Amino acid sequence: MNIGLDIMGGDYAPIETVKGVSQFLSEQTHSAHLTLIGDEQQIKELLQQYEVPINNITVVHADQVIDMHESPTKALKEKQRSSISIGFHLLASGKTDAFISAGNTGAMLVGALFSIKAIEGVLRPTISSVIPKENGKTGLILDVGLNADCKPEQLNQFAVMGSVYVQQILGIENPRVALLNVGEEEGKGNILAQATYPLLKDNKHIHFIGNIEGRDVLLDRADVIVCEGFTGNVILKLAESLYGISERQNLEHAYFERFNFENYGGTPVLGVAKPVIIGHGISHAKAFKNMIMLAHKMIEKELMSKMKMELEP
Amino acid sequence: MNIGLDIMGGDYAPIETVKGVSQFLSEQTHSAHLTLIGDEQQIKELLQQYEVPINNITVVHADQVIDMHESPTKALKEKQRSSISIGFHLLASGKTDAFISAGNTGAMLVGALFSIKAIEGVLRPTISSVIPKENGKTGLILDVGLNADCKPEQLNQFAVMGSVYVQQILGIENPRVALLNVGEEEGKGNILAQATYPLLKDNKHIHFIGNIEGRDVLLDRADVIVCEGFTGNVILKLAESLYGISERQNLEHAYFERFNFENYGGTPVLGVAKPVIIGHGISHAKAFKNMIMLAHKMIEKELMSKMKMELEP
Repeated sequence: MNIGLDIMGGDYAPIETVKGVSQFLSEQTHSAHLTLIGDEQQIKELLQQYEVPINNITVVHADQVIDMHESPTKALKEKQRSSISIGFHLLASGKTDAFISAGNTGAMLVGALFSIKAIEGVLRPTISSVIPKENGKTGLILDVGLNADCKPEQLNQFAVMGSVYVQQILGIENPRVALLNVGEEEGKGNILAQATYPLLKDNKHIHFIGNIEGRDVLLDRADVIVCEGFTGNVILKLAESLYGISERQNLEHAYFERFNFENYGGTPVLGVAKPVIIGHGISHAKAFKNMIMLAHKMIEKELMSKMKMELEP
Repeated sequence: MNIGLDIMGGDYAPIETVKGVSQFLSEQTHSAHLTLIGDEQQIKELLQQYEVPINNITVVHADQVIDMHESPTKALKEKQRSSISIGFHLLASGKTDAFISAGNTGAMLVGALFSIKAIEGVLRPTISSVIPKENGKTGLILDVGLNADCKPEQLNQFAVMGSVYVQQILGIENPRVALLNVGEEEGKGNILAQATYPLLKDNKHIHFIGNIEGRDVLLDRADVIVCEGFTGNVILKLAESLYGISERQNLEHAYFERFNFENYGGTPVLGVAKPVIIGHGISHAKAFKNMIMLAHKMIEKELMSKMKMELEP
């Protein structure tokens, strides 16, 4: 397998990206070839400096970088020699099997949606986030912002994709899928939630346990929480803010440490035919290492073909 | 002024309700007449037991109680001699100036919407919640569940009602109003948020500061946060759950103590012509005292007529 990584993406690139590569190669027992995309000279110097073994590495030169605040569509069109554009080109043409970047999030989303095909039958790809549970376990919530307005059929597919993801990647057997709602009983909620409930209830590909409420999000009530991307995004960012609060307030508590989302690496775009992982701008080496490991696992477990199978009616 | 209180409503009623009355009367320097609604004999015994001075108290007998899990509309119709039904009757007929209950929430909402007129011009009444900010201040978020689906014009009115409320009740001058959204720039968001932004921007009755994101909810970015009741309800319940987590994890931290929503008393229904305050089922004496104080302030500040003035175009 060949994993593409944008070395130039992220606030602390390229140093932290290369350090992440180094950590992955020193810890990883499985074999993976890495394709590092970015300024060739800088990359080669850093590989030497951090004494990274280069037998499983290819460097692909990119002399442009898409900045964090550029307009995604415009930048992808005008900067065809940027590390993100080249990364997607390599993935789309089959030269790599996954692509990772902590660069411009919008460009990564646009690239994923328009360079890489959606899995057959997928109405809309989605992005998810892990949620640290109070009891030490980890759940998944989706969508967290790619789809601010959703249709019931889309939420029903998110449930399947989330379910396959937590089984294969988080190793949770027969994951409990819940609909995020304002009350527990069937019939509660806004128009979207009311219309989604019966679809989830009838969906044979998931283990639907009903509605859960805001108070259940951080408890171990469900493994997969389904909602539209507006509410999901607000919840994710609120949860992320708890880490900053815990730091400023000197809580020093193991549970609140888990809201440091750098621990989890990046967010995979689910529903596209190949693994695309979007990192947080503030990613350090550990996050990059975790993202490479995630891409590795997604390829190894053949996540996309398993999703495709489960999405068939 | 005459404040009506359902003595039978809440998990710890009637003892905690009467204790709340006692605390209010002993701490309160302003004059208010209280109308206590419920089982007359029980109330009189408890008033004696807790040595509550009865010169400013009227007891109105109600021989029925609406239970926490009864269907609201059915219960209000069939239990006309319940403390909630009588409470709304007294308020609607002008015998009291406010009504408070920690009983069946649904019955309180149905009663507020159907027994008490909406303020002229109000499209939909709303319920709000205070939000404890990390820096010690307190903000307001609305809607938190009465309106799971909203129109932009309704959110625009919530902004005005929330703004008047925090000015008059929380004492915040020129409150900053923000729209909860998935990004900071105008144009971001779901269809509702996109359509609401220009209305808030053009609204001369509020000080609109733009969009805020989930990460800003617990920070002191805005005094009034406007959203539809689905997202608002999920956020409120998630925030409430932080108190339980902080207790179970022995955090013993002053900030997380503030997520004990009992500190704040109850939730007023905004947009109806008279003060109606809904208490949490688990309310203890302190919450009841705080709800009576809130009703007192809402009457004293003539909150409803100030809202009416600001809602005029």
